[in-house]
Amino acid sequence: MGRWKPNAPGRLATAALELYSERGFEQTTVAEIAKRAGLTERTFFRHYADKREVLFAGAPAMRELFVQAVSDAPRSAAPVDLLVAGFDAVSEMFADRREAARQRQSVITANAHLQERELIKLAKLSAALAEALRRRGVAEPTATLTAEAGVVVFKVGFARWIAPGEEREMAQLLRETLGELKALWPRAASERM
Amino acid sequence: MGRWKPNAPGRLATAALELYSERGFEQTTVAEIAKRAGLTERTFFRHYADKREVLFAGAPAMRELFVQAVSDAPRSAAPVDLLVAGFDAVSEMFADRREAARQRQSVITANAHLQERELIKLAKLSAALAEALRRRGVAEPTATLTAEAGVVVFKVGFARWIAPGEEREMAQLLRETLGELKALWPRAASERM
Repeated sequence: MGRWKPNAPGRLATAALELYSERGFEQTTVAEIAKRAGLTERTFFRHYADKREVLFAGAPAMRELFVQAVSDAPRSAAPVDLLVAGFDAVSEMFADRREAARQRQSVITANAHLQERELIKLAKLSAALAEALRRRGVAEPTATLTAEAGVVVFKVGFARWIAPGEEREMAQLLRETLGELKALWPRAASERM
Repeated sequence: MGRWKPNAPGRLATAALELYSERGFEQTTVAEIAKRAGLTERTFFRHYADKREVLFAGAPAMRELFVQAVSDAPRSAAPVDLLVAGFDAVSEMFADRREAARQRQSVITANAHLQERELIKLAKLSAALAEALRRRGVAEPTATLTAEAGVVVFKVGFARWIAPGEEREMAQLLRETLGELKALWPRAASERM
């Protein structure tokens, strides 16, 4: 029986990310993760179903935070502007985790199954956002299109945030990316002032 | 040795869709599909790796058609308008297949693994479109955002095309959906004429 160690899930996640980065995801065992974290395999399985789960354990909390911010945002002219509230909330959650996010992304990029799981995570986020928008009275197809646009911006903006050498804040990059999505439709000359 | 039967892949696909709809995807065997099509299991495996493959065999051709149309489209004011050429090409490919598409969608909606595979298909389409746009000289992040917007519109517009009772053409629904995505950003009063 070991002494009680605080923050077991966080320490296991840190150990797992280190090992996945050093040796590859496939080559790492739960026993090695537990050992690196100074914990037992039994403790690992108390917190995570398997070694893949370590990489996606934060997804439900992120989704809830995003959805809650969109649900609570003040009424605005366009539903798409509600997304900014969600972007800001998520950016705050990730503020101190840019290096961990870079490590995680490298692991996922190297493994097709993890990439699939990442796609499912984003599809769930989109469905939850669309549902939150409908609850606010946004009609279809606007609710689904706004949610899908939000996920596209999050995906592209997040990739920029973790790009090598990037130092700007995630909230800023997500707002810029949202502006760039809007700018795909240039104003016709007749529409300009 | 059976006589040679024309269009074996098409007949196997039709038989598979019927059986997946009647009995469920999980409950259907390759032997049953071959029998329903009047062919052998051996013939099945000459055309499809497994019973899942039947549902996704058309994806590479659809992707190539879409990408080719975008690559060949005349230069336009905005890269996002290039998507319409792709939408029109794909709509033509699907023209006679609305009922089959409805059947296929019901099968996929009922099975989480098939849904994942569908997400992968769409992610590949997005990556191929972004690459085609970059080859045309479209810079990042515009290329990726345009491709992602195209896939969102395709996904939402396709879902409308196969909705019960819908009779409008896919090309029309995709154009409308593209217009609705653009309309997420209403013009400010100061920007209107």
